[in-house]
Amino acid sequence: MKITAYTVDNIPMIKEGDDLAAIVTGSTEIEDGDIVAFASTIVSKAEGSRYLLSDITPSDKAFELAELNNEDPKFIQYVLNSSTKILMKHPLLVQTVWGNVCINAGIDRSNTETGYILLLPEDSDRSARELRDRIFEITGKKVAVIITDTNGRSFRNGQIGVTVGCAGIAGLIDKRGDVDLFGHTLKITIQAITDEVAACANMLMGESNEGTPVAIIRGFKYPVSDEGIRSTFRTDDEDIVKRALIEKLERDEKALLTDRAQTKKLTTND
Amino acid sequence: MKITAYTVDNIPMIKEGDDLAAIVTGSTEIEDGDIVAFASTIVSKAEGSRYLLSDITPSDKAFELAELNNEDPKFIQYVLNSSTKILMKHPLLVQTVWGNVCINAGIDRSNTETGYILLLPEDSDRSARELRDRIFEITGKKVAVIITDTNGRSFRNGQIGVTVGCAGIAGLIDKRGDVDLFGHTLKITIQAITDEVAACANMLMGESNEGTPVAIIRGFKYPVSDEGIRSTFRTDDEDIVKRALIEKLERDEKALLTDRAQTKKLTTND
Repeated sequence: MKITAYTVDNIPMIKEGDDLAAIVTGSTEIEDGDIVAFASTIVSKAEGSRYLLSDITPSDKAFELAELNNEDPKFIQYVLNSSTKILMKHPLLVQTVWGNVCINAGIDRSNTETGYILLLPEDSDRSARELRDRIFEITGKKVAVIITDTNGRSFRNGQIGVTVGCAGIAGLIDKRGDVDLFGHTLKITIQAITDEVAACANMLMGESNEGTPVAIIRGFKYPVSDEGIRSTFRTDDEDIVKRALIEKLERDEKALLTDRAQTKKLTTND
Repeated sequence: MKITAYTVDNIPMIKEGDDLAAIVTGSTEIEDGDIVAFASTIVSKAEGSRYLLSDITPSDKAFELAELNNEDPKFIQYVLNSSTKILMKHPLLVQTVWGNVCINAGIDRSNTETGYILLLPEDSDRSARELRDRIFEITGKKVAVIITDTNGRSFRNGQIGVTVGCAGIAGLIDKRGDVDLFGHTLKITIQAITDEVAACANMLMGESNEGTPVAIIRGFKYPVSDEGIRSTFRTDDEDIVKRALIEKLERDEKALLTDRAQTKKLTTND
């Protein structure tokens, strides 16, 4: 298999209401079967998911977590509003309303104007479908679309590109039941194909000042599907790491409360 | 940036002592700056890291874990011998002697003859350096080499390609201190560049019966370094997930022992 992959040049600063599909297809020739990868930041900007940091009132919880993380309580409040579960307090690892697990709910303060924050798209699979459909409308080409973000990993330093939303490409390829070169049935092999595509795209996009938030991957044979990325998120039941982190957090909290109670007692006894 | 990436055709079945660099450079034209990605399986085979399953005597621990995982105790004993820490018993997640964290110490039973197992290369960074040097010797071309495996992830289903060893390319690009498009200093951005390259390579290689264990990535501008991949492995101190898993395991063991003691007591009291 051979692929080519490239970043699209001359993408302007994106603002609310911009037609991303038109901008991309105006800057490069799209072909049938291409995968078009958009950095989540520009999808958020086009969709107007940009908010004023000062437009929120932090809760006590936000103040506590802000102190722990040396962060602005208002920023943390946005993170809390975008989350359903806290898995780790420092760094602040959460499960988002969308369902993915990441630091600070994927909320971005870089790559936007001072005083503003960018939330992840509300429903990144829907955003991906809309972009895919709009690209078809403009060009008549059938593509897959992925929306990428960068995530840290357990056990390994550094961040890599992952998919937060997709359309026209399956999140996972299930190869269980396939046989290897020696005819053995593979025991477990589910390949997270769109995340590999996202890593490839992110490798080209870079992350800081490159200003290249769109990449095209051409020539890759992928399974077409509209299931979206959410099947890639582990459910609570099957996620031992999530469980271990939540248990640890509960234990640490309890220990902290006990400590505080004892300190209080000692102080009272003085 | 534009890259091309392709799998090398006509790689024969690899056996101990094979000159992988000669095989690859005999099958495709290498250019300066290419990244040559080798699936760890063929590096292990060439290095003779293939062992007879029947050549080992399982310990009690291996029997216990084998039952839990519905596995062969001899296979589990190889996993234990390759590991320094157990992080999860089922699935059997370990820290390997090499330092990476993965299921079953990355030991492979697929893609090799029945009755044999393949360990990961003993020192994958060394293997990568040797391959890089040998490619230079044969072709006069300066390349980077990565050795890939596939790993599962926390929070997300499916496996992706990761780097277990590298030479001539930095594991991580540290962008802390860089500024974004708006001139803000980025807070945390360390890009795990070789892991992104590995994901891209693995996306092309596939995993089951494709028989394409070598990929070339061309045109990617990467930072040259000989530090190897081990700086990418989180140390115990900085790895909260590792700590949470070990604590969970210790707690579960303790609860199990208490349960057993109580059951024994009840039985004795009967």
